[in-house]
Amino acid sequence: MHALFSLQEIETLVTPRSVRGCTEATLTGIAALKDAAPGDISFLGNPKYKADVAASKASLILVPADYDAEPAAGQCLLLVDNPSAALAKLCARLEQRLWPRPAAGIHPSAIVDPTAKIAADATVGPLCVIEAGVTVGARTHVQAQAYLGRDVVVGEDCWFLPGVKIYNECVVRDRVRLHAGVVIGSDGFGYEFNAGRHEKVPQVGNVVVESDVEIGANTTIDRARFSRTVIGEGTKIDNLVQIGHNVLVGKHCLLCSQVGISGSTTLGDYVVLGGQVGVAGHLHIAKGTKAGGQTGIGADTQPGSYINGSPALPYMLERRITVLRERIPGLFRQVDTLQRELAELKKSSAS
Amino acid sequence: MHALFSLQEIETLVTPRSVRGCTEATLTGIAALKDAAPGDISFLGNPKYKADVAASKASLILVPADYDAEPAAGQCLLLVDNPSAALAKLCARLEQRLWPRPAAGIHPSAIVDPTAKIAADATVGPLCVIEAGVTVGARTHVQAQAYLGRDVVVGEDCWFLPGVKIYNECVVRDRVRLHAGVVIGSDGFGYEFNAGRHEKVPQVGNVVVESDVEIGANTTIDRARFSRTVIGEGTKIDNLVQIGHNVLVGKHCLLCSQVGISGSTTLGDYVVLGGQVGVAGHLHIAKGTKAGGQTGIGADTQPGSYINGSPALPYMLERRITVLRERIPGLFRQVDTLQRELAELKKSSAS
Amino acid sequence: MHALFSLQEIETLVTPRSVRGCTEATLTGIAALKDAAPGDISFLGNPKYKADVAASKASLILVPADYDAEPAAGQCLLLVDNPSAALAKLCARLEQRLWPRPAAGIHPSAIVDPTAKIAADATVGPLCVIEAGVTVGARTHVQAQAYLGRDVVVGEDCWFLPGVKIYNECVVRDRVRLHAGVVIGSDGFGYEFNAGRHEKVPQVGNVVVESDVEIGANTTIDRARFSRTVIGEGTKIDNLVQIGHNVLVGKHCLLCSQVGISGSTTLGDYVVLGGQVGVAGHLHIAKGTKAGGQTGIGADTQPGSYINGSPALPYMLERRITVLRERIPGLFRQVDTLQRELAELKKSSAS
Repeated sequence: MHALFSLQEIETLVTPRSVRGCTEATLTGIAALKDAAPGDISFLGNPKYKADVAASKASLILVPADYDAEPAAGQCLLLVDNPSAALAKLCARLEQRLWPRPAAGIHPSAIVDPTAKIAADATVGPLCVIEAGVTVGARTHVQAQAYLGRDVVVGEDCWFLPGVKIYNECVVRDRVRLHAGVVIGSDGFGYEFNAGRHEKVPQVGNVVVESDVEIGANTTIDRARFSRTVIGEGTKIDNLVQIGHNVLVGKHCLLCSQVGISGSTTLGDYVVLGGQVGVAGHLHIAKGTKAGGQTGIGADTQPGSYINGSPALPYMLERRITVLRERIPGLFRQVDTLQRELAELKKSSAS
Repeated sequence: MHALFSLQEIETLVTPRSVRGCTEATLTGIAALKDAAPGDISFLGNPKYKADVAASKASLILVPADYDAEPAAGQCLLLVDNPSAALAKLCARLEQRLWPRPAAGIHPSAIVDPTAKIAADATVGPLCVIEAGVTVGARTHVQAQAYLGRDVVVGEDCWFLPGVKIYNECVVRDRVRLHAGVVIGSDGFGYEFNAGRHEKVPQVGNVVVESDVEIGANTTIDRARFSRTVIGEGTKIDNLVQIGHNVLVGKHCLLCSQVGISGSTTLGDYVVLGGQVGVAGHLHIAKGTKAGGQTGIGADTQPGSYINGSPALPYMLERRITVLRERIPGLFRQVDTLQRELAELKKSSAS
Repeated sequence: MHALFSLQEIETLVTPRSVRGCTEATLTGIAALKDAAPGDISFLGNPKYKADVAASKASLILVPADYDAEPAAGQCLLLVDNPSAALAKLCARLEQRLWPRPAAGIHPSAIVDPTAKIAADATVGPLCVIEAGVTVGARTHVQAQAYLGRDVVVGEDCWFLPGVKIYNECVVRDRVRLHAGVVIGSDGFGYEFNAGRHEKVPQVGNVVVESDVEIGANTTIDRARFSRTVIGEGTKIDNLVQIGHNVLVGKHCLLCSQVGISGSTTLGDYVVLGGQVGVAGHLHIAKGTKAGGQTGIGADTQPGSYINGSPALPYMLERRITVLRERIPGLFRQVDTLQRELAELKKSSAS
C-alpha cells in the first residue's frame, strides 16, 4: 500500500490549531473510528462518538479544537476547528489524484465522424464512436468506449465514464456526469396489439438531460414516443434505474438504485424515491414527495407527501399497519374466541 | 431547433380533406394538446379531449373531418379522416429520418474473424468484435461496439443497437431488435454447496431468441444449464429485465422493465408481466396470465388469470384486501371494543 | 445441429457398467427426461422420476446401475453408478469445448498503457482499454472491450467476459469471474443538500473483490466513500444486482438477481438473498441470514434467521400472515356480524 498523505501534506491541507502526539506509521487509508487500523486516518465528526477516539487504532485522528484527552502511543491527534470539514479537504485532494484532469484531445483510436464538432479542450478517450453531427462542448471528458449517436448534443464540463451509450438526437447539457454503462435514448416500450401480435409504435422523440445531473452505472433512460423525456436540472439518479418514455423528472430529485418509472409519469421538483420504488405510468408525483424503499406508487401524490408500502399509503398509516401486521394471527384467534363466547352467552341468556 | 416538417411535407403525408387557418411557425416538435407550445404539431386522437383543441398552443393540429370549430390566430387545423393514423404517418416518416438505412459492409475498425460469415448486405459497425464461426444474416445491422461470441448465429433483418454482447453459441433469429447493453447468454446462477463453498455448476446450454423479438437496454438473459433458454416469437422485453437459465418464454409476451424470472420457469403465450414483477423458479405461468407491477409470483397460474400483490392473489381479491388494509387499525380497535362490551355483558348477565 | 458427442465419446467419459439397447441418432442436445426429443441425452438423477424414463423420447439415457427396465426401440440406456455425476462429466467436457483456453497475449487492437504489467501468460482480448499502472496476473483472461482503469489490480486465473468496466484503483483478487457489462467502482450515491441543491460528496475509496467470487451480467458495485467496498471470498452474485458504497459482503454469500444493498450495510458470511431483495443502509445482516424473494430488510438480523416479506418478518410468521391475508375480507364481515349480534343481545338482555 502506498501512502495517501505524508503528515506534512495533511498539516498543509487542514492547518490544525495544534498537534498532540506523533506517529511513525505510513498513512495509507481513511476509516471510521471503530473500523480504523494502524495506518488509517480517522476523524471525530460527531461529538457523541467521543469515546471511540480513545479506543480507535487509527494512526492519525482529526479531533475538534476542544478535545481534551491524550493520544495513544504512536498516535497523532490533529486539533482542528471542524473535523468533518477537514476530512472533506483530504477527500477532495484524493479526488483530484484519483481523477486527474485528462489531456485535451481525441485519442487516435476513437472513430469520430468528420462532421462532429468536438471542442478543442474536450477529451475523447480511446475506442469511442462519435457519429455524424455530434457536438461535444468545452472541457467535456468522454472516457473510453463511449458511443454518441448521430446529432447528439453534449454541453460543457460533462464527464462520461467508460462505455456510455447515447442514441441519436439526444441532448445532454452542462456538468452532467454519466457513469459506466448508462444508456440514454433507447426506445420506449410501446406496442399496439393487432391480430395477435404486438406492433411497434415508433419512438421518435428524444431525451434531454438538463445541467448538473448525475446518472449511475447501467441506468437506462428511454427516448420519448414523440417530444421529450426530460431529467431536470440537478437531479441525481443512482445505478440500474429505469426511466420510461415521456417521463418528465423535475429538478433536484433523488432516485435511488433500481427505481423504475413507467411511461408518461411526471415528477415534480425535489422528489425523493428510495431503492426499488416502482411508479406506474401517466401519474403526477407532486413536488417534494418522498417514498421509502420498495414503495409501489399507483396514484398521484400530494405535494410534500411521505409515502410507503406497496401499494403506497401515507407513511404513518403504513407504519401502523405494518406494526399491526404481526398481530393479525392473534386478531383472528381473538375474534374466534369472541364468537364462541358470544354464542355461549346467547345460549345461556336464551335458557 | 431545426424544422421537423414543412407544412407542404405534412400535407403530402397526411392528405387532409381541408385546411383551416394558417401558421407561420417553424414546426419543430410533436406534443399532446395540453403540453404543446408554439411550433408544435398536435392531434385530437380521442373525441373526449375535443375541448383541449381550443386551449392548445400547438401551431398545427390534426383534427377529425367533422371538427367544427375555428383555429386560434396563427394556428392551422388539418381535417383528416383519422388523426391518430395521420400522426402515425408523421412518426413513421420521422423514424425513417432518425434511423436511415445504413450502408452495407463491415467497418474497417471492426475485428471480424475470417471464419465468420457476414451477409454481403449486412452492416457491421465500428469496433465490433465478431468471433470465429459467427453467422450474420441478410440486411442485419450490428451497430458499434457489439460482441458476437464464437458460433453465434444471427438471422436476417435484425438490428442490434450499440454495445450488445452475445456469448458463444447463442442463436438470434430474424427481425430481432436488441437495445444497447443487452447481454445474451451469460451463465445461469447455479452452484452446488460443498464443504462450505459454492461450487459452480457448468452452464453449457445456450439462448435462442426467436423471430420478431425486441429486448430493451441492459436486459440480461442467461444461457441454459444444458439445452436452451428460449424467448418466444414476437415477445417484447423492456429494459433491465433478468431472465434466468432454462426459462422458456412463450410467444407474444410482454415483460415490462425490471421483471425478474428465476431459472427453469416457463411462460405460456401472451403472458403480460408489469414492471418489477418477480417470478420464482420452476413454475408454469399459464397462457394469457397478467400480473400487475411488483407482483411476486410463487406458484403456478391458471390460463388467463389476472393476479396482483406479493405474494400474488387473484386481482379482485387482492384489490379488496388492499382497500381493507387501510381499515385494519380500525378493525383492531373495533375488536377490542367488542371484547370489552362482551365482558361487561357477561358480568351483568352473571349478576 | 452438430453432434455434441459420439456414443464412443460418451462411453469413454462415463465408463458405464453396461449398455442396454442402441441408437442411431446423432446426439445433439441434453434435456430433462420429460422435455427430451430424439437426439437428446437425458438422465435419471432422482429415483422418484423413474417412471419418466419409459416415457422419455431421449435417444440416450444415463440410468442407475440397478435400473431394471428395457429401453424403447432406437433408445440406448447407459447403466452407471451415479447418473448425475455422469452427466456432470459430460457437461464439464462441453464446458471445455464452449470455452477453450485462449492463447496468451495481448490482442493488437487493445489499447494498453506501457506502464501496465500484464502477465506473460495472461490474455487481453480485442479492443480492451488498459490504463496506466494496471496489473493483470498470471493466466487471467480479459475478453473483448473491457476497461481497466488506472492502477487497477487483477489477480491470477480471473476471467472477465466482454465489456467489463473497472474504475481506477479497484482490486480484484484470484479466480474471479466477471460477466459481461459488470461495473466495478462506480461512485457511491452520496450528496449533501445545501441551498436547494444536492452537492456531491467525493467518493474516493475503492472496491475489493476477494478470490473465487463470480459476478453476474450488468451488476454494479459502487466504490466506497472512503476506505473500501468489499465482496468476500467465494461469494456469488447474480445479474443486475446493486451493491452500494462501503457495503461489506461476507464470504460465501449468494445474492440472487436484482438484489439491491444500500450503502454501509454489512453482510456476514453465508448470507443468502433471494431475487429482488432490498436491504436498507447501515444495517448488519448476520451470518447465515436467508431472505426470500422480494423481501424488504429494514433492520438488523440475527444469525441464521430466515425472513420473508416487505418489511421482513420471521419466515414462519410471515407465511402464517400471508395465508390469513386471503381471509381478511371474511374477518371484517365476521366482526361486523359479531357487533350486530352483540348489540341485539345487549338490547334483549336490557329489556
